[in-house]
Amino acid sequence: MAMKFSSLTSILFTFGLIASPLGATLANEADLQQLTNASESSDLAFDIVKSLTIEVGPRIAGSEGDKKAVAWAEAKLKTLGFDKVYKQPVRVRNWSRGLAEAKIISPYEHSVVITALGGSVATPKGGLKAEVLMVESLEALQQTPPEDVSGKIVFINKKMQRDRAGKGYGPVVVGRSQGAIEAARANAQAILIRSVGTDNSRFAHTGAMRYSPDVKKIPAGALSNADADTLEAMFDTTNPVTMHVNMQAKEHGWQTSYNVIGEITGSEKPNEFIHLAAHLDSWDEGTGALDDGAGVGIVTAAATLVKNTLGQPKRSIRVVLYANEEFGLIGAKQYTKDNADTLEQIIVAAESDFGAGSIYQIDTRFAAPALPFAKKLEKALKPLGIKLGPNTATGGPDIYMLPAKGVPVVSLRQDGTYYFDYHHTPNDTLDKINLDDIRQNQTAYAIFAYMMANSDVDPRPAPELEPAQ
Amino acid sequence: MAMKFSSLTSILFTFGLIASPLGATLANEADLQQLTNASESSDLAFDIVKSLTIEVGPRIAGSEGDKKAVAWAEAKLKTLGFDKVYKQPVRVRNWSRGLAEAKIISPYEHSVVITALGGSVATPKGGLKAEVLMVESLEALQQTPPEDVSGKIVFINKKMQRDRAGKGYGPVVVGRSQGAIEAARANAQAILIRSVGTDNSRFAHTGAMRYSPDVKKIPAGALSNADADTLEAMFDTTNPVTMHVNMQAKEHGWQTSYNVIGEITGSEKPNEFIHLAAHLDSWDEGTGALDDGAGVGIVTAAATLVKNTLGQPKRSIRVVLYANEEFGLIGAKQYTKDNADTLEQIIVAAESDFGAGSIYQIDTRFAAPALPFAKKLEKALKPLGIKLGPNTATGGPDIYMLPAKGVPVVSLRQDGTYYFDYHHTPNDTLDKINLDDIRQNQTAYAIFAYMMANSDVDPRPAPELEPAQ
Repeated sequence: MAMKFSSLTSILFTFGLIASPLGATLANEADLQQLTNASESSDLAFDIVKSLTIEVGPRIAGSEGDKKAVAWAEAKLKTLGFDKVYKQPVRVRNWSRGLAEAKIISPYEHSVVITALGGSVATPKGGLKAEVLMVESLEALQQTPPEDVSGKIVFINKKMQRDRAGKGYGPVVVGRSQGAIEAARANAQAILIRSVGTDNSRFAHTGAMRYSPDVKKIPAGALSNADADTLEAMFDTTNPVTMHVNMQAKEHGWQTSYNVIGEITGSEKPNEFIHLAAHLDSWDEGTGALDDGAGVGIVTAAATLVKNTLGQPKRSIRVVLYANEEFGLIGAKQYTKDNADTLEQIIVAAESDFGAGSIYQIDTRFAAPALPFAKKLEKALKPLGIKLGPNTATGGPDIYMLPAKGVPVVSLRQDGTYYFDYHHTPNDTLDKINLDDIRQNQTAYAIFAYMMANSDVDPRPAPELEPAQ
Repeated sequence: MAMKFSSLTSILFTFGLIASPLGATLANEADLQQLTNASESSDLAFDIVKSLTIEVGPRIAGSEGDKKAVAWAEAKLKTLGFDKVYKQPVRVRNWSRGLAEAKIISPYEHSVVITALGGSVATPKGGLKAEVLMVESLEALQQTPPEDVSGKIVFINKKMQRDRAGKGYGPVVVGRSQGAIEAARANAQAILIRSVGTDNSRFAHTGAMRYSPDVKKIPAGALSNADADTLEAMFDTTNPVTMHVNMQAKEHGWQTSYNVIGEITGSEKPNEFIHLAAHLDSWDEGTGALDDGAGVGIVTAAATLVKNTLGQPKRSIRVVLYANEEFGLIGAKQYTKDNADTLEQIIVAAESDFGAGSIYQIDTRFAAPALPFAKKLEKALKPLGIKLGPNTATGGPDIYMLPAKGVPVVSLRQDGTYYFDYHHTPNDTLDKINLDDIRQNQTAYAIFAYMMANSDVDPRPAPELEPAQ
């Protein structure tokens, strides 16, 4: 039934044959213009990131920085006038990186820049020394006879390709997440990967990695791309390449962190929510400006601008700043579990977690009857250079589990051409954020949130995605 | 007399009225084409830099790396077929950076990235803690009442501007070289400068600094530009900004290093030299690929290509790889002193020490009678996109003292737009060199060296420069 109605309205809309039945309470153009003007003269998103990165700085889950960030977020949301601000406890693992140093011993001595992958065990005190086996990829490692791997330091030397949508990440990141398992299966002593990043610099990129209960936990690190080049060049000689690796990461047990949530309660439908997400935690080496200070700034500023410019929305706008995204989406999983009974109240969810590059496309995951509204969103976002993409959005990392529970999502897709130059490095700092670009994000999220909050559109339930063909 | 002749020939040449009397033995176009073709199919300059950076790596004056570099250079010049290869001892100071760490304590705690400036004394063991005084420039520091400086850590927060010719360097580098003197004069405890670099990254840029015998030596360091932004942001609050700085640089006394010299002896005028320069030393944190592995590769490859492609030149080509440029041009001063009696044998000198960006201009410092030859150089270099600049070249740092002694110089001016992103940082590594660009340099130097070595042109003596107006 819904399907039939949807198909019909969809066709009629497409050809402009009927006025929108959804548009009855839709924001008028003057409101949108007012909101845009307000956003375009506001540095709020940038200022929020500045405040977070300067006043708090690095905030790996469970750390002192994380605790400061939670207090900062609560205070910030209150100051900005969210009428409900609360925390949701999340148990998080607290891991610290400690010392991470490495040296090529032969054929030519070189100190190289490495970092521990998140969650790695330490090497023995003083480090370990072994011959290096270079492989092209995780697959190549899987295909190497175990006797060639045994006792060695495995070096996965796969380069990430630059791409606006970040498509280069997936094919390379498997080496980071799975490499230690595969290397340990063949009895390697340790694993180093070429950094999952598009820069050529001497910053190593960290990121989460996994172990498997059936194999030994071995130390896992990443070399900066420049140092991976140096290591690769060592294989030009016929001499064995040997290295010394010393990593002193530590586990500090479990801590309590928090999802920090701020709501602007709706005037007409307070129990229908526009769910705007970002994550509050960051890795420890940079100040988490792009990942995900930017997202925190964008969604918080957008909700604030809606309220300050056009008053209380009809539906509620909920900003969720998730705990511990980096280390297994722990805050998001907790949220989804704790709120299992009320997820149906979420009209739509969106997450900003891909830096601060300008948005070029909005993908939706709407039930068919709401697709005409996607066109309205496109029309409203068009002045920002944003076009409508497919109805196959997966949302951001912290909301990816929601569509399977029927929660519609959108992906406001950002230009990520340079995102992976800085991602998970000490170089993820405020100066990487362009004020015009983050303001464009702020405006887009404000328009999106306002339109969703002030209409009757119901994109629920999110459609299932067809499997890739 | 010479002047009259020069003026006349210059005019006649300019209007193409006479054939070149200098052109009797001048290389013909077929030779130049052959040389260009050989260079364009050769990776030699790049391969030399690769060999130096991979097999030796960092090579600060007097260090083990420096000793390796000297042995490497001797072996490389011999392998490439230079018929005379010899070393000239140079006494160099051996300073080591040691630990360099800093933390903002208040108003918000932050670990920041610093590096010691070259030659800095250490802080007390365990570091020092003080309030920070931020000033805009060296001049602003000089104008600050001493009582406002006394006991503080001075922070010179002057940004370097990006420029193709590197014009942003001079106005900022005075803070690096003179800052410790001026800060100590007003009894500061230490000085930190914003890095002299055009990047926004978390690499701090080192570089030489000076002390004055009449004031105390105080520790001097540089903050990365990203961390300088962070420190600057601390001054948005009204609270005092305090820092902890710990630098454990050390002097290891004097060592012997060497200028390494390779010659291709001329067939007709072996005692007339085309002098091609670069410096062999580097700072300690990167592998000195741009500064000055590139120069070593370019001039060595150019001379080698001339010999290998067109045989023994008529005049000698001398490649001088200077010791210890970074720390006071010590090798160059030694060279000039030891060879005071034979500098007149140098027909022309050129130095490559500005990275590996493509050359866009050749400036000369020729006696007037040789100016028509500059036009010939321009014609030969034009296919590479190089035009003739003014006759006011100063040469590179290691040869800047030669024109005052009558030695003509040229400056083959490179595009330095990105040079100062990497200059004097750990990020100065091989991957920053573009193969096409360094090959263009190699070709240009080969053409220049060949034309100078196979003509009778005599640009001596170098004219005095008129003072700037």
